[in-house]
Amino acid sequence: MSFLKDGERLEDLQRGGFKLIQDPRLFCFGLDAVLLSSFAKGKKGEKCVDLGTGSGVIPILMAAKTNFDQIYGIEIQPVFADMAQRSVKLNSLEDKVFILRLDLRDPAQLKEIFQKQDSFDAVTANPPYIKQGAGAHSESESLRISRHEICCSIEDAATAAARLLRPQGRFYLVHRPQRLPDAFQALREKGLEPKVLRFVHASVDKAPTLFLLESIRNGKPHLCVEPPLLLREGDGESPELRRIYGNE
Amino acid sequence: MSFLKDGERLEDLQRGGFKLIQDPRLFCFGLDAVLLSSFAKGKKGEKCVDLGTGSGVIPILMAAKTNFDQIYGIEIQPVFADMAQRSVKLNSLEDKVFILRLDLRDPAQLKEIFQKQDSFDAVTANPPYIKQGAGAHSESESLRISRHEICCSIEDAATAAARLLRPQGRFYLVHRPQRLPDAFQALREKGLEPKVLRFVHASVDKAPTLFLLESIRNGKPHLCVEPPLLLREGDGESPELRRIYGNE
Repeated sequence: MSFLKDGERLEDLQRGGFKLIQDPRLFCFGLDAVLLSSFAKGKKGEKCVDLGTGSGVIPILMAAKTNFDQIYGIEIQPVFADMAQRSVKLNSLEDKVFILRLDLRDPAQLKEIFQKQDSFDAVTANPPYIKQGAGAHSESESLRISRHEICCSIEDAATAAARLLRPQGRFYLVHRPQRLPDAFQALREKGLEPKVLRFVHASVDKAPTLFLLESIRNGKPHLCVEPPLLLREGDGESPELRRIYGNE
Repeated sequence: MSFLKDGERLEDLQRGGFKLIQDPRLFCFGLDAVLLSSFAKGKKGEKCVDLGTGSGVIPILMAAKTNFDQIYGIEIQPVFADMAQRSVKLNSLEDKVFILRLDLRDPAQLKEIFQKQDSFDAVTANPPYIKQGAGAHSESESLRISRHEICCSIEDAATAAARLLRPQGRFYLVHRPQRLPDAFQALREKGLEPKVLRFVHASVDKAPTLFLLESIRNGKPHLCVEPPLLLREGDGESPELRRIYGNE
């Protein structure tokens, strides 16, 4: 199959018949990307940018789950930008999903490509979770960039989102609970007000492992914390998780 | 009974045989105060201050639930300081609980009474929840002070806590979820790092109505979000709520 390079495999996204190219030697998408693509809301006529899109899982899932007209995925690593672009073609999404190789920290690159910067209705980000300097350093350079805040810290993501969003535009972020104060601080410093927060728990008696957060550019302070998103209830997957994965 | 003034009544705290004087015409303590007194932790030899103590419910409950040697309650409204002082006597807690009439916003008053300001191991606060200017204004002056941020905003509470706490001292706050970003911002601006966060939900499928937050003066950033505290499970009160209320 000509879409796949040596060592790559195809993942069935269980949505809209879409498939995604993954390389097991590099960073592979996880539950967090799937949850974020369901947490983000998009209407007809709107356009969205996914920051640090990796293999393009979030734009391609959003093409199936939301009504965004245009979804851009920007990615700094050429190997991922290339892989994501092949997944877009594989799913015949060239009219809707656009993959761009650029550094989200560089305002000149953002400006060159998007011209009118503050024109997006929504931005999504599933950034690296680990602070630079922390964690294991035995990984490849590519894995380190995907997992550590080397090319995209929370502050970098908030800065890029604030540049790209129109006033009242929405920024959807998934991150780890221990970083919530850092996220709130970075967002407010860039004029992005946290508005809807949801924690993801393996089960009701467990501490959350992720949070999903919607912030509004120039929004009025008032946070809505939603009921917990439980992954398991009783003996199996929760009905909500089954809906998110498209099995129900 | 000589402890009670006209119109007042006695509330059984269901802990240590303690009772509390309440005046139904003024602000009466609620679930939030009871939850905070269980969330706060105190060791032998430690001392604590409760900011805006009202009828003294938090210091008196903490006298039963924690091992603090000394618990101070400071209160701006004379009517409450007097009522709290009579409850302290009623429960023979004069060696452990100390009620002081003062304005927590005034560093001179704090300094005069406590001399060495940064000497407390813990501070608790169940401040008014409503932003000044918001909500109904048909209430009495006393009720407005208890409910609205007139004499104690989140910022005022954080400022007083930062003044009173020793380095690594703990600040326990209960507030409404919609104010979480304001709380994080005020705390960090005063050098108080949010460390443990717990949301209180009526039941697992409901949005939380309160949060409990422990911050550490000069603490290292890393927030631990705990499993949800559920008030109801199945058909009745949750086991945890029954333990908190001392019925089990």
